Amino acid sequence: MLFEKIKSDLLAHNSYIIGAGGEATVIDPRRDCQVYTNIAERESMKITRIFETHKNEDYVIGSRDLARPTGAEILHGAREEFGFGTGVREGETFSVGPLELEVLETPGHTIESISLLLRDRSVSDDPLMVFTGDALFAGDVGRTDLAGEDMRREASEMLYESLHQKILPLPDSTIVCPAHGAGSVCGGNISDREYTTIGFEKVTNGLLSLSKDEFVERKVSERLYEPPYFTMMRKLNREGPPLIYNLPHLRAYSPREIRSLMDQRVQIVDIRSPTSFAGGHIPGVLSIWRNGLPLYMGYYLNYEDPIVLVDDFNLDLDHAVRHFVRLGYDNIAGYLAGGFAAWFKQGEIIERSGTWSPPDLAENLDDPAVWVLDVRNINHREEDGYIQGSHHIYVGHLEEHIEEIPEDKRIVVHCDAGYKGSLAASILEKHGFRNVVNLLGGTIGWNAANYPLVKEEERTVSASPTP
Amino acid sequence: MLFEKIKSDLLAHNSYIIGAGGEATVIDPRRDCQVYTNIAERESMKITRIFETHKNEDYVIGSRDLARPTGAEILHGAREEFGFGTGVREGETFSVGPLELEVLETPGHTIESISLLLRDRSVSDDPLMVFTGDALFAGDVGRTDLAGEDMRREASEMLYESLHQKILPLPDSTIVCPAHGAGSVCGGNISDREYTTIGFEKVTNGLLSLSKDEFVERKVSERLYEPPYFTMMRKLNREGPPLIYNLPHLRAYSPREIRSLMDQRVQIVDIRSPTSFAGGHIPGVLSIWRNGLPLYMGYYLNYEDPIVLVDDFNLDLDHAVRHFVRLGYDNIAGYLAGGFAAWFKQGEIIERSGTWSPPDLAENLDDPAVWVLDVRNINHREEDGYIQGSHHIYVGHLEEHIEEIPEDKRIVVHCDAGYKGSLAASILEKHGFRNVVNLLGGTIGWNAANYPLVKEEERTVSASPTP
Amino acid sequence: MLFEKIKSDLLAHNSYIIGAGGEATVIDPRRDCQVYTNIAERESMKITRIFETHKNEDYVIGSRDLARPTGAEILHGAREEFGFGTGVREGETFSVGPLELEVLETPGHTIESISLLLRDRSVSDDPLMVFTGDALFAGDVGRTDLAGEDMRREASEMLYESLHQKILPLPDSTIVCPAHGAGSVCGGNISDREYTTIGFEKVTNGLLSLSKDEFVERKVSERLYEPPYFTMMRKLNREGPPLIYNLPHLRAYSPREIRSLMDQRVQIVDIRSPTSFAGGHIPGVLSIWRNGLPLYMGYYLNYEDPIVLVDDFNLDLDHAVRHFVRLGYDNIAGYLAGGFAAWFKQGEIIERSGTWSPPDLAENLDDPAVWVLDVRNINHREEDGYIQGSHHIYVGHLEEHIEEIPEDKRIVVHCDAGYKGSLAASILEKHGFRNVVNLLGGTIGWNAANYPLVKEEERTVSASPTP
Amino acid sequence: MLFEKIKSDLLAHNSYIIGAGGEATVIDPRRDCQVYTNIAERESMKITRIFETHKNEDYVIGSRDLARPTGAEILHGAREEFGFGTGVREGETFSVGPLELEVLETPGHTIESISLLLRDRSVSDDPLMVFTGDALFAGDVGRTDLAGEDMRREASEMLYESLHQKILPLPDSTIVCPAHGAGSVCGGNISDREYTTIGFEKVTNGLLSLSKDEFVERKVSERLYEPPYFTMMRKLNREGPPLIYNLPHLRAYSPREIRSLMDQRVQIVDIRSPTSFAGGHIPGVLSIWRNGLPLYMGYYLNYEDPIVLVDDFNLDLDHAVRHFVRLGYDNIAGYLAGGFAAWFKQGEIIERSGTWSPPDLAENLDDPAVWVLDVRNINHREEDGYIQGSHHIYVGHLEEHIEEIPEDKRIVVHCDAGYKGSLAASILEKHGFRNVVNLLGGTIGWNAANYPLVKEEERTVSASPTP
Repeated sequence: MLFEKIKSDLLAHNSYIIGAGGEATVIDPRRDCQVYTNIAERESMKITRIFETHKNEDYVIGSRDLARPTGAEILHGAREEFGFGTGVREGETFSVGPLELEVLETPGHTIESISLLLRDRSVSDDPLMVFTGDALFAGDVGRTDLAGEDMRREASEMLYESLHQKILPLPDSTIVCPAHGAGSVCGGNISDREYTTIGFEKVTNGLLSLSKDEFVERKVSERLYEPPYFTMMRKLNREGPPLIYNLPHLRAYSPREIRSLMDQRVQIVDIRSPTSFAGGHIPGVLSIWRNGLPLYMGYYLNYEDPIVLVDDFNLDLDHAVRHFVRLGYDNIAGYLAGGFAAWFKQGEIIERSGTWSPPDLAENLDDPAVWVLDVRNINHREEDGYIQGSHHIYVGHLEEHIEEIPEDKRIVVHCDAGYKGSLAASILEKHGFRNVVNLLGGTIGWNAANYPLVKEEERTVSASPTP
Repeated sequence: MLFEKIKSDLLAHNSYIIGAGGEATVIDPRRDCQVYTNIAERESMKITRIFETHKNEDYVIGSRDLARPTGAEILHGAREEFGFGTGVREGETFSVGPLELEVLETPGHTIESISLLLRDRSVSDDPLMVFTGDALFAGDVGRTDLAGEDMRREASEMLYESLHQKILPLPDSTIVCPAHGAGSVCGGNISDREYTTIGFEKVTNGLLSLSKDEFVERKVSERLYEPPYFTMMRKLNREGPPLIYNLPHLRAYSPREIRSLMDQRVQIVDIRSPTSFAGGHIPGVLSIWRNGLPLYMGYYLNYEDPIVLVDDFNLDLDHAVRHFVRLGYDNIAGYLAGGFAAWFKQGEIIERSGTWSPPDLAENLDDPAVWVLDVRNINHREEDGYIQGSHHIYVGHLEEHIEEIPEDKRIVVHCDAGYKGSLAASILEKHGFRNVVNLLGGTIGWNAANYPLVKEEERTVSASPTP
Repeated sequence: MLFEKIKSDLLAHNSYIIGAGGEATVIDPRRDCQVYTNIAERESMKITRIFETHKNEDYVIGSRDLARPTGAEILHGAREEFGFGTGVREGETFSVGPLELEVLETPGHTIESISLLLRDRSVSDDPLMVFTGDALFAGDVGRTDLAGEDMRREASEMLYESLHQKILPLPDSTIVCPAHGAGSVCGGNISDREYTTIGFEKVTNGLLSLSKDEFVERKVSERLYEPPYFTMMRKLNREGPPLIYNLPHLRAYSPREIRSLMDQRVQIVDIRSPTSFAGGHIPGVLSIWRNGLPLYMGYYLNYEDPIVLVDDFNLDLDHAVRHFVRLGYDNIAGYLAGGFAAWFKQGEIIERSGTWSPPDLAENLDDPAVWVLDVRNINHREEDGYIQGSHHIYVGHLEEHIEEIPEDKRIVVHCDAGYKGSLAASILEKHGFRNVVNLLGGTIGWNAANYPLVKEEERTVSASPTP
Repeated sequence: MLFEKIKSDLLAHNSYIIGAGGEATVIDPRRDCQVYTNIAERESMKITRIFETHKNEDYVIGSRDLARPTGAEILHGAREEFGFGTGVREGETFSVGPLELEVLETPGHTIESISLLLRDRSVSDDPLMVFTGDALFAGDVGRTDLAGEDMRREASEMLYESLHQKILPLPDSTIVCPAHGAGSVCGGNISDREYTTIGFEKVTNGLLSLSKDEFVERKVSERLYEPPYFTMMRKLNREGPPLIYNLPHLRAYSPREIRSLMDQRVQIVDIRSPTSFAGGHIPGVLSIWRNGLPLYMGYYLNYEDPIVLVDDFNLDLDHAVRHFVRLGYDNIAGYLAGGFAAWFKQGEIIERSGTWSPPDLAENLDDPAVWVLDVRNINHREEDGYIQGSHHIYVGHLEEHIEEIPEDKRIVVHCDAGYKGSLAASILEKHGFRNVVNLLGGTIGWNAANYPLVKEEERTVSASPTP
């Protein structure tokens, strides 16, 4: 029996391939899908079926791309119209050699969400695993806010029923395989357990022991951010996204070309580290460090204007490209040949921004000319505490709240580590702020250096995800 | 939380790396251990502890090699003296960030065997996983025959107690992580489930529902093969094997050098396919196809004479080298530069052997000049049935029973697919048999072509693994 | 200064990338062209120009594919209409930073052939290198037969003039960079020197010291084979071939699917070694060993029916795919999942063919039932000698001469090593011959084993390339 | 014929492998020598001989490492004692299949320097190539200063004779293969031609047309830097360096461990970009950007204390390790796990330094508080010009001249691009300077932005390489 979890790094998306008897089935494939055909090849198996547990919001689904070279059938929940594939209904079973997948309709996160129960009929009628999509995660359950505020209560009720009628009655021993892991934007608080079971979730996942009313209240009042690109994902994933298969190849741009692109519409993303950004950068670029791309590009990049990358040494850009492709940014166009050095070797103007360490901030905390801006997730601010006197605007909402920030002060932005702070600094700079400092280490460093975080509620400028 | 299963391909050995809070622990590492440091590097973790669940018999343990670049502490069961590391006892706990590993002494397979219980104390006191070493597998339990026939009953009793007192009382929801998967020589009948749980094993693993007496009887009468290289593994793994770390590099030998090596003592292994061996080969070589290396080299290769590989196109020999290193064959020396073609371009004498398809055999089955030799595992012969009139000697025991084979007949060797049949054919040729045919497809092909397999007991020449 | 020769392995096609000052130019790129963008990226250069020295016959040109991601301009000789790019004329110069490329019109091999002279104007007006396309090779000159028999004399005269008026007058110190190396089908006798100079060629290349009349006579009477796929190449390369860029991904076929494809039109290519083919194969397949693909597929594969590969272990098929793509076989479709073993595990009928070593043939050479068939290039036969009594038909012309081969004899095919012999054996088998033996080692092995090769002219059945 | 140039990137060291008839010879191999065995394997050749053209000063020779897996014979010039290998003399010849290598004794750069003449005897007695070691480069000749000031004249005379008696008399058409390319510290002004010929050098290499007296004067007055590590290289390469073969594996260090190492003796090298260094760094580290490692580590690192790397994202550190190994820094020990972010997440103190763009400097050039320090090679300063008012100390000599730098001014360091400036800034910081700014873009950027460079001789503080 082939069973492998394929994780899309940083995006925290899980897909799975299972197989037996020369046949394989893929669940929730990603768009750069050669990984699945490679595994099947290694195992001398043919991929014959592809399941989408739901129309995902956080990445472009890969079933159509994977169907092309394999000829596999695409299957998804039947309660919503898709522009491709075949709808499946509660109780339908599909065999993979001696294995069997049974469809459980588990609406809630979306209306057409399904789970898949895996049995090995050759040894038992008990299920071995359940693929829960976005219904049940390790330590969390799916979001119910994405269909809109007016649908939220109903979605939460449906999810409660799906969990309690379909999933939790499974044997404690059933291994749970969700579509996302820790760090995903598809859950507020997904645990970092790589594998879990129904029994372990029953004991440890607090949401599962709530009454229906409590559960629905909790889900209705939950504050979660929705990156703007979700809208595009839903559209593409319902209609059937454009086919790629191979990764696109980036075009090398000279500084001169970058400059002329800047006169048109171009989106330059500086994927260097926060220190490198601070030490010097092309004016007006967006600072999203390499590993933050999948989580933050969706807030600030559009799908029309060409995207150009700036790195220090242009190392492993092929991997960076994957992140763009997975989120549907087929407008990823190129990179600055020679890296940022090519820019400064032209004698071009550069911008710098400041960096502070926690002791630097501690020393200046009471300076009235200093305005501390916390750009973390509001939940982290409330749960982990905040730096006394700091103000809060979530990094993803910074542009909408830009006028709330004083122009005559030194703005010290911080997040939890120093990366999102650099993104925030780049946005502030774009909006004309020139006296911006990023706190390297963020609240983690602050805490490690034994400076206090305040936990009492204090009202500050705040862009919480839900009203 | 980092959790990753690292499988040594073909050997079906599982090792694990778990980590949290910047620290990682490796369980049962293999000797070519860069895979673990690479994962730790990717996760920005330091490997600080290495556990050996028991002194493995089927491969060279990697803890000493892994301790070198990491400085990690080596831990193993305390009930036997090791030449390295520190003994641990029942109930000792080791933390890995918020995770905790608790030692369970689970003797039976070996006296010093331990299991490790993984808890995430930040969420629950319930265990999440148990690393069972060679005590419990998916669908099987550990061997109890390796300490010798006189110890077998006692070992089986100990294993029963370990299972029933220590492992099975764990919650059904506990995920079971054994040291071996399907295909391993460390179990007779390990299932191919990649993951399983205590609850699922209780329902599906027939050995767990036996009474103590039944269990011990079953284990005592179980017929398992023990490859001769196990003796070396036990010795090395107790004393502490020699350090490698990097893979050795093979030396290119010209046909002329191969010829002169043949005058001394050399072990030439033809890793080509059965058809390629049949179509022409260097006289006297051992035919072990590439993917059969880890399972069969240990029957026929010694640890002294240099080992030289013969391939068709010398593709990916680096990977083949891993198999030798994992089994301690540091006498792997080189390969025939230019592949087998380099041999025949010298105009050298070659040997050929025959191949038959199932229809060919069916047509000649009643020919008194044909002697069919089944070289499969005796258990497969008895459970799956055999070709009418065939004789049985296990491929690993062929040399010891060589005189039982008639010299004046056409010997048609077969296994289940055609690969081990080629190994058998090469051994027969080495012992002077010239009229040997390998049944391509073996019993699988025979069956697929709708020829009958007999299941009634019929006494034939047979080399079963236990008297 | 960037200068790199990129060789398409086995095809013996050379392309070049040169660059300076942030710009690069590619000469005669191949179709799988990421290699050039990778080099440019490494050097922080942009590819701005692509030259085609002539419309190649032996591979699909890559300029259009390379122009896509780079935006580079395509340039070629102006004396023929192309469906793309811009024509260039004698004396035009193109700068690459301080470097300069000057066009020399050097017709002969084709009418629009150009050479490119490289100068580094910052140090000298003397040329450093000359890119000669198919005009001048190390030890040979371009073919003049491809435009048809009636054009041959004229083409040879033009080539003589191009060589003696344009190329040979260059300083002795000029490094010569031709479009092909040893083994190419674009020259009869290209030397295996990786680099050469005008001076060295003048001394060592016998064709260059001939008078015009001698030269033309030699070229007109030269016997060269023209693989049928050349016709397609000429057509594509003139019109502009279809774009790929990324390699296609092969589809995994089960034995059952292969079988059903066989009922339709499919081209199955067995890329295993000659011994593996001999030891057992799917009836009716074409045997072209992995490394013979680029040189022999063009004789026997068409551009319509899907092509499916059969290997032993499916190792590195991605590389094999390149060979098909380079020759325009975009109908490469898939491979037998599980390799040939998957076939025989179905109990399917297999074919075998014989293999002999030189001593085997020597022993049977006088047997009147044995008919020895030499399938080498006629020039090799005549220059290196032949086995007494052997008959000759070139492997590429075997189908057209199939009726010249006796059906009632044992056919012993041989080439120089044993690979092309296997291809010949597979063609004979396809045409109903059942008693075919391939001489492993061919004339090389025959010679190495000290058996005689005859050099006197003896008239035999012979398919020489030109009438 | 196999001919391949293997370049050690950045170090600009060339080695060569040539082969024919199943045998290969390597000339001047580097220490991480698997590249040669891989090529030989691909070509089905055995490496049987290794030549050292001279005992190199700029890297650890690889002949002993390469001899181990190949069994090849090591050969070097006979005029000096080596601790390994066999001395060869003028006129000795060595065949490689049909090829022949003839030894030319060409002392000058070192006393035992040899060149190797390559002939293909099957086609001509004229040489095809000459491997000139450090006697003749493209556009330059070998250094004659390394044996000490008192030997310099004699060495220059010997080199003149070697060039004019042995090398230049070769045919113009002979291809020249030197041991170094552009950028090497083994020549002052090596051209970036990848290939050249005797004829082309005669025309373009100005040193070759000088009279003996002129040549010797020029060589004796030539100003070249000698990195301190040369001393170690000469010692190792004469005695026979310690064997490695495989690359060492780096150990992951936590910030805590780094801190404790800092209390002992450790050499921390920050391989990030100049901007990243400027934006924040561990106090006291050495800033050598990734691609500057081979050229500058030898000035500032010792061979005893462990070396630890700091990167942004720990990308491709394996490649960085090669640079250390090639220069004999086997004390390369590890890297900061998690990159520099791991440091600042601990809330640790960080240092920053300034960056200026050319316009920033232009604006402040007349500020008396600004002290501009040019750290380029003195020859670049004199040939390319300098920024008005700047002072000069070569980056490699900065520590010895540290007291010449005013402590009360803002020090603006610059090189030609901005990288060596960062190294200089890190050294200044180590010596207590806190007000240091690195000019991003250096003189290249300054020039590109149209600011003037002065070329008249102006006396400044200057550490020229020779008195």
